[in-house]
Amino acid sequence: KSLKIAVIPGDGIGQEVMPEGLKCLRAVAKRYNIKIQLDEHFADWATCPRYLREGSMLPEGWKEQLTSYDAIYFGAVGHPATVPDHISLWGSLIQFRREFDQYISLRPCKLLPGIRCPLADKKVGDIDFWVVRENTEGEYSSVGGKIFEGTEREVVIQETVMTRIGVDRVLKYAYELAQSRPKRHLTSATKSNGISISMPYWDQRVAEMGKKYSDVFVDKFHIDILTAWFVLRPETFDVVVGSNLFGDILSDLGPACTGSIGVAPSGNINPEGRWPSLFEPVHGSAPDIAGKGIANPIGMIWAGQMLLEHFGHKEAAHTMMRAIEAALERGGTGIITPDLGGAGTCEGLGSYIASLIEEI
Amino acid sequence: KSLKIAVIPGDGIGQEVMPEGLKCLRAVAKRYNIKIQLDEHFADWATCPRYLREGSMLPEGWKEQLTSYDAIYFGAVGHPATVPDHISLWGSLIQFRREFDQYISLRPCKLLPGIRCPLADKKVGDIDFWVVRENTEGEYSSVGGKIFEGTEREVVIQETVMTRIGVDRVLKYAYELAQSRPKRHLTSATKSNGISISMPYWDQRVAEMGKKYSDVFVDKFHIDILTAWFVLRPETFDVVVGSNLFGDILSDLGPACTGSIGVAPSGNINPEGRWPSLFEPVHGSAPDIAGKGIANPIGMIWAGQMLLEHFGHKEAAHTMMRAIEAALERGGTGIITPDLGGAGTCEGLGSYIASLIEEI
Ligand SMILES: CC(C)[C@H](C(=O)O)[C@@H](O)C(=O)O
Ligand SMILES: CC(C)[C@H](C(=O)O)[C@@H](O)C(=O)O
Repeated sequence: KSLKIAVIPGDGIGQEVMPEGLKCLRAVAKRYNIKIQLDEHFADWATCPRYLREGSMLPEGWKEQLTSYDAIYFGAVGHPATVPDHISLWGSLIQFRREFDQYISLRPCKLLPGIRCPLADKKVGDIDFWVVRENTEGEYSSVGGKIFEGTEREVVIQETVMTRIGVDRVLKYAYELAQSRPKRHLTSATKSNGISISMPYWDQRVAEMGKKYSDVFVDKFHIDILTAWFVLRPETFDVVVGSNLFGDILSDLGPACTGSIGVAPSGNINPEGRWPSLFEPVHGSAPDIAGKGIANPIGMIWAGQMLLEHFGHKEAAHTMMRAIEAALERGGTGIITPDLGGAGTCEGLGSYIASLIEEI
Repeated sequence: KSLKIAVIPGDGIGQEVMPEGLKCLRAVAKRYNIKIQLDEHFADWATCPRYLREGSMLPEGWKEQLTSYDAIYFGAVGHPATVPDHISLWGSLIQFRREFDQYISLRPCKLLPGIRCPLADKKVGDIDFWVVRENTEGEYSSVGGKIFEGTEREVVIQETVMTRIGVDRVLKYAYELAQSRPKRHLTSATKSNGISISMPYWDQRVAEMGKKYSDVFVDKFHIDILTAWFVLRPETFDVVVGSNLFGDILSDLGPACTGSIGVAPSGNINPEGRWPSLFEPVHGSAPDIAGKGIANPIGMIWAGQMLLEHFGHKEAAHTMMRAIEAALERGGTGIITPDLGGAGTCEGLGSYIASLIEEI
């Protein structure tokens, strides 16, 4: 059966990096004989121009139209000068997460060759872990309100809501990911010494679920010291799991620590495949460099790699990763894009990686 | 009028670093003729042995006994092997914060000479900023509960509670601190794109309060990307303010980024002086090295420096800081403690800094 992918480039550099991502996906599909259907008739979905014209980021009936897809391959969204971020994001990405129950957010934190690591004395191979984030509930609940508004005694309340179902399913995913890796090491982010109801509950579910995965080594750290350990000893992590907020923080901090925030991918996953999962680069639409042809396409290409990996195409995914790393190592300044100190173009780097995928 | 200080060394290395802290405070007080009364009859307060003997970290009537002091000079607390952390911490430090309305937590993030910076290519002078944390409300409210406990449909709720009084007073402190510094730059930590009630409220108060401090440049970042900027461009910060949880995270991450988590101090401040403020090193009681005489006393000494600065003894505080920096620069391996790669002792480094305070 063919893998059915909805291609949504979105705004800004999303439009530029997407063709490179598709080029590489097609190259790898050809080489490994993977049946993959890339539907490109969503060109104006999730764009600010569309919002300004039609009043919504997505057309009516979007959910039905996307439901039959296995995945969404997504570029970037937002143009803050014309549409506020919360409208463009909540009207596209965040909607997908909620409506398609993409309850896992997954991001690699990996030191790649050719990328300057902001941490001292780290070399390629030292840092290689995953952050698994709960993506639908917890601190992002939108439940709460205000009282005595506008007065001295104003009180504002926001509720964190955790459900057993919601917590257990992300922990299950994280334990299984840890189990599939050589180190079998899971780290849980908590703050049970300060946040006294929800976080001890999280800890309790981590311990309970651990009984089913006795071959996984589990530890936990409070989020404050955990962010410090990301900087001081990132090589000790394998899989790190956190609530919606803690996972959000760690999945920006982790790629920052490897210098890869501009090239890392992100998966928003509905593990059961009941709904489409979404794969995107971590970077945004970068209006400042959009249209110049110099955006780095690696985040988009790596997102395609994650997509293939997720759907079980291990060998193809492995080849794509090797091609990305080889391009960074051998590309040279004529190929590498300006963000990494080269003078190359988006199209040039994308084509180079595609050619490596064919032959590496 | 004399400065009245309650000296509480606490557990583990707290007992070892405190004498060095006192030595330095006495040296600087003598040099600058500062009247300072250091009351040492609290030797077993806030210790786990006391808890095991008496069933409480602090004696009855502790609040009355401490009320007349200007400040508490605090060592470290906790011995996890005998008393769980949440009992020792909540029974001492956290009680002080709440009962003495120490609504500001203040921590320096400063690159010092002789300390290995975990970030690549940073030199002394590059990183020098403060984290101001709301210390009494917000995410640490302890309000909430569970329903459908022990079943599939279990729901756990924890409420973040912000009050106008609570938010405004920390912002006022942060704006004034920023105003007193050459760069006059305040950065606010938010997450209003995800946490949709309390965080937009925080932003609104930041903007409102900003009207009174038009000479302060304010910006804001979402906490996820802000942690990334701490690693990628720490030199751009001056004063950073955050809610209880965000401030907690940033005030561990900041010192981690400067490699100074073992030597940094922390102030828990009641700015009006209605109640005693508390100054302590960031490090804990370190049971693993306690009793060996090799603990680094700089956190304790630097906490004394912050105390003097807080009470307006600028020149004395400046001298203490110079003495600490000079010791790190010139001390050599015979003086510097093992945590920084030397072979010195706690007592040796403390005495060396005290001698520098006398003559520098
Ligand atoms: C012990 C814990 C509750 C505390 C906090 O989160 O406030 C600690 O991390 C701190 O920063 O002093
Ligand atoms: C835009 C925002 C709501 C979002 C989040 O916090 O989830 C973003 O930071 C992300 O990680 O995709």
